[in-house]
Amino acid sequence: MTFFDVLDILGTVAFAASGALSAMNRRLDLFGIFIIAFVTAIGGGTVRDILIGNTPVSWMQNTMYIYLIGGVTTLSIILRNKLNYLRKSLFLFDTIGLGIFTIIGVEIGIQASLEPIVSIALGAMTGCFGGVIRDILCNEIPVIFRKEIYATASIAGGICYMALHSLSVNQNIIYISTTLFIIIIRLLVVKNKVSLPSFSVKN
Amino acid sequence: MTFFDVLDILGTVAFAASGALSAMNRRLDLFGIFIIAFVTAIGGGTVRDILIGNTPVSWMQNTMYIYLIGGVTTLSIILRNKLNYLRKSLFLFDTIGLGIFTIIGVEIGIQASLEPIVSIALGAMTGCFGGVIRDILCNEIPVIFRKEIYATASIAGGICYMALHSLSVNQNIIYISTTLFIIIIRLLVVKNKVSLPSFSVKN
Amino acid sequence: MTFFDVLDILGTVAFAASGALSAMNRRLDLFGIFIIAFVTAIGGGTVRDILIGNTPVSWMQNTMYIYLIGGVTTLSIILRNKLNYLRKSLFLFDTIGLGIFTIIGVEIGIQASLEPIVSIALGAMTGCFGGVIRDILCNEIPVIFRKEIYATASIAGGICYMALHSLSVNQNIIYISTTLFIIIIRLLVVKNKVSLPSFSVKN
Repeated sequence: MTFFDVLDILGTVAFAASGALSAMNRRLDLFGIFIIAFVTAIGGGTVRDILIGNTPVSWMQNTMYIYLIGGVTTLSIILRNKLNYLRKSLFLFDTIGLGIFTIIGVEIGIQASLEPIVSIALGAMTGCFGGVIRDILCNEIPVIFRKEIYATASIAGGICYMALHSLSVNQNIIYISTTLFIIIIRLLVVKNKVSLPSFSVKN
Repeated sequence: MTFFDVLDILGTVAFAASGALSAMNRRLDLFGIFIIAFVTAIGGGTVRDILIGNTPVSWMQNTMYIYLIGGVTTLSIILRNKLNYLRKSLFLFDTIGLGIFTIIGVEIGIQASLEPIVSIALGAMTGCFGGVIRDILCNEIPVIFRKEIYATASIAGGICYMALHSLSVNQNIIYISTTLFIIIIRLLVVKNKVSLPSFSVKN
Repeated sequence: MTFFDVLDILGTVAFAASGALSAMNRRLDLFGIFIIAFVTAIGGGTVRDILIGNTPVSWMQNTMYIYLIGGVTTLSIILRNKLNYLRKSLFLFDTIGLGIFTIIGVEIGIQASLEPIVSIALGAMTGCFGGVIRDILCNEIPVIFRKEIYATASIAGGICYMALHSLSVNQNIIYISTTLFIIIIRLLVVKNKVSLPSFSVKN
């Protein structure tokens, strides 16, 4: 079991918890909570696998994901009031998942011999898609379109990853520093309410 | 032509009819009716094929599906008032499609050497996705999120299928009994308005 | 570089511009504009590639698409008021993209040895999907469901393509005449407000 596998598990746990919390906030029934947790946790990786042709997709090749997501969701239901006591736990889990899944997507792009810019795009899709589909299913404005610099943090992380990779930095150090870089960018941005400029057409 | 093929045709007919009826209820134009019928009938199987890497997807390898869906949709338009006279025909077609497509998905998962729990998930996706995409396109609340135990019936059917499969029951008997099991669960649940518990977070 | 490649570039440019304009109309931020332009331009081709199993999908195998879309989007932002001065520029770009991407999809279906009717369906999906996903993300009624004969123009073009193909007409003439055929149908239909009949169920 490599450090990469550990990160994959942590990202899955974080996104499963964010999906379960989001579904409970929406008062979905028991099945709805499990399905949202499942889709949030596997969504990004499934899109990544389909785009590069890695089929059957990862969660079909390894049942560990299904049991892991089931366990995390059950725990989230049991601890639901405690998790809420930790304010912004949904936000934190979502941000951790974004950071970890972005670097996993970038790394898999590199391993599939894709160009650096394509690997960065693959990382952003892997990181963002779970949260986007969770928000669409829970009938919220997708996180990617809120004024919070979500995908931008993911893309910045992908660029950081490629830069460290080209400098032949130790792989585990790249994983940790890039993940933290993405998490810190998003925390700073949300805390300071930074947003990108918008352009509208004169009518 | 095996019994499996016959079931595949029946499931396609049922979902095409449910899509056409749903589109007519929404007063879509002629083209809209055909597209919704088509997407409802092939949606589940397409997602299944993409996830396991069976490409070009089934309906591209066999034009029978396109002609079959076209024929059923034309018939649904001609018979639209008679079909409506049979109250809840949309509900019935949808339930039959759910039952049949679930077992087809489970069986294809087994043939692709996937683990039992993964085959059950594949069956649920094959069974549910067509109806979900139909409801999203027709601007209804997706059937999977209504308080009707839709996907739960599909998963229960998948478990029943795996149980009978492990007991080496005759294949055609597994097909028929599991399909009926799913249809009966859903009918009973809707008739008795059973719903799963929901958990909300204290604010 | 073949004429086919030139058409692919023109279609990508047209859909990227239509996505950028649509996003600016919705006052999305800088990142939102790029993401909508990107998804609109690659959406149809990505769905086509996934359905036939051509993975990694086209834009991952050739970084030209990413740079091209980035350039067109930047130019659209700079020229946004001039583009709007040309009334209906969004409509025009969308229609050009529809025409070109339809024939690209049909041609790729033929090259993949798919049946004529399947190639026509593949062309319609390639042509329509980018615009549909753009409208869903921009929160508009998807172009395919407005009373404008959008997908119908695409399918009519696909049939025209197959007819000329079976007559062994010169390939470049097929490309140009079919693309113009689709564009002209849509322009005429929108100008004359033609719509398909609709069928509703008596309640």
